[in-house]
Amino acid sequence: MRQAHECGCDLVVFTECALTAFFPHWYMEDEDEIDSYFERGLPSDATRPLFEEAARLNIGFYLGFAELAFVDGRKRRFNSSVLVGGDGRIVGKFRKIHLPGHEDHRPGNPFQNLEKRYFDVGDLGFPTWNAFGGVVGMCICNDRRWPETYRVLGLRGAEMVLVGYNTPYHIPEHPEMDRLADFHHQLSLQSGAYQNGCWVVAVAKAGVEEGVSQIGKTSIIAPSGEIAAESRSLDDELVVCRCDLDATTAYKQGVLNFAGNRRIEHYGPITSQSGASAPGGTEK
Amino acid sequence: MRQAHECGCDLVVFTECALTAFFPHWYMEDEDEIDSYFERGLPSDATRPLFEEAARLNIGFYLGFAELAFVDGRKRRFNSSVLVGGDGRIVGKFRKIHLPGHEDHRPGNPFQNLEKRYFDVGDLGFPTWNAFGGVVGMCICNDRRWPETYRVLGLRGAEMVLVGYNTPYHIPEHPEMDRLADFHHQLSLQSGAYQNGCWVVAVAKAGVEEGVSQIGKTSIIAPSGEIAAESRSLDDELVVCRCDLDATTAYKQGVLNFAGNRRIEHYGPITSQSGASAPGGTEK
Repeated sequence: MRQAHECGCDLVVFTECALTAFFPHWYMEDEDEIDSYFERGLPSDATRPLFEEAARLNIGFYLGFAELAFVDGRKRRFNSSVLVGGDGRIVGKFRKIHLPGHEDHRPGNPFQNLEKRYFDVGDLGFPTWNAFGGVVGMCICNDRRWPETYRVLGLRGAEMVLVGYNTPYHIPEHPEMDRLADFHHQLSLQSGAYQNGCWVVAVAKAGVEEGVSQIGKTSIIAPSGEIAAESRSLDDELVVCRCDLDATTAYKQGVLNFAGNRRIEHYGPITSQSGASAPGGTEK
Repeated sequence: MRQAHECGCDLVVFTECALTAFFPHWYMEDEDEIDSYFERGLPSDATRPLFEEAARLNIGFYLGFAELAFVDGRKRRFNSSVLVGGDGRIVGKFRKIHLPGHEDHRPGNPFQNLEKRYFDVGDLGFPTWNAFGGVVGMCICNDRRWPETYRVLGLRGAEMVLVGYNTPYHIPEHPEMDRLADFHHQLSLQSGAYQNGCWVVAVAKAGVEEGVSQIGKTSIIAPSGEIAAESRSLDDELVVCRCDLDATTAYKQGVLNFAGNRRIEHYGPITSQSGASAPGGTEK
């Protein structure tokens, strides 16, 4: 954050679950052990210095963290992020919607991907906020592979989408796709940016963590879909980019402007069915 | 078609409005003149030889054409395509949903883009059909830039999406985007393929037609999102690719499987609003 401040940045994006190791990679049964990875609220005693330093530097940030919350009196666990303004106050919160992986222990795999076990599906939808001189939205990791994520945010005016992610190079169930990890990552970001005329800032926990190799490719994507900046290593690295929010206008008002072109009467299945159905459709 | 047959193809994709010059590039007021570009039905006397040759060679095809139809007694004009089986019979029809361009004459522009003037919005949705040993869907040109197109087709099981397109290099309203024409084209196809685990076969009317330079980049995209084959010129060219429909399975059942991951309760705005709204969303 201090380094970013020296570079003139007014917003820093940290990654998914930035405060802990990415514990969904291993299997736990003990509830207390699981809970130990979760925050009860932000800022806490341990995290307050980050918020205070942000206010001191007048620099905002996105922070991914594991969140333990009580919703209607029931303990819930979310994979969350907060957007914090340059005054150190929380602008908004997001809870990850698209949880990857599995619920069951798979001891034959080199590591687990137990997000479906440890986290509940986010219950806050995809909000956007007026912040940093524009309209900002958030998502987390696997959310970025789903065009619905960017579209809902785009329909709420997002000019910049912030994404933290932890993505292993190896998919134990589909090793033949490992070689495509970087490509699939950037393809998702680039199409989401272009098709919604927004900046996408995606930040990785990169390198080897607890034996799991993570992709890097922290990427800042322009509303054109072009890669404006990206990381050059799998080490700690600050990627700086000047993001002109006015560059969204030509895309939002041009060929892909929503109001003049979207035909919601033909999009029904997108919100009426989660899984695929048999071939069919209107006949005439 | 004969050349494709010699190469062992069982399906040929022709482009959008393949039977005429792309007349939305010029302004017309005379109804009869406009109608002269439209087919009243397929096969007609003029097009029957194509259907008969298809049956003789046992080769199917996608054909884009301008369609004049009477719907509920009213004359309508659509930008349509048909899918024809190896027996020369029509499997299904599609009518373009996302019409680009404008309705008004813009005499200051080097050419017009009057699809919104000459065509009605398609009224058949995005159907899919069991054909060619798999599940096939269609769309036309600008439809390919909208993730909703692929998603509705994907939700109806599409393993292959066929697209004909006529795309000028120059966007008179946004000349600064001209340099990105090929990139935006392929980005849309590649993300649609990857995010829905399907093949996308996109075929261009390329080169200069009536003074308008069209992009080429006929592209066949694998379910991985990779470019499996593409054209190498702006001339007449047959691009051949063996498309293994079983290659869709790992994607449809893997990380991006719909039933286990899509969260339609959070996608509401996609079908409830066409245009963008103010920032907002669930607050908690």
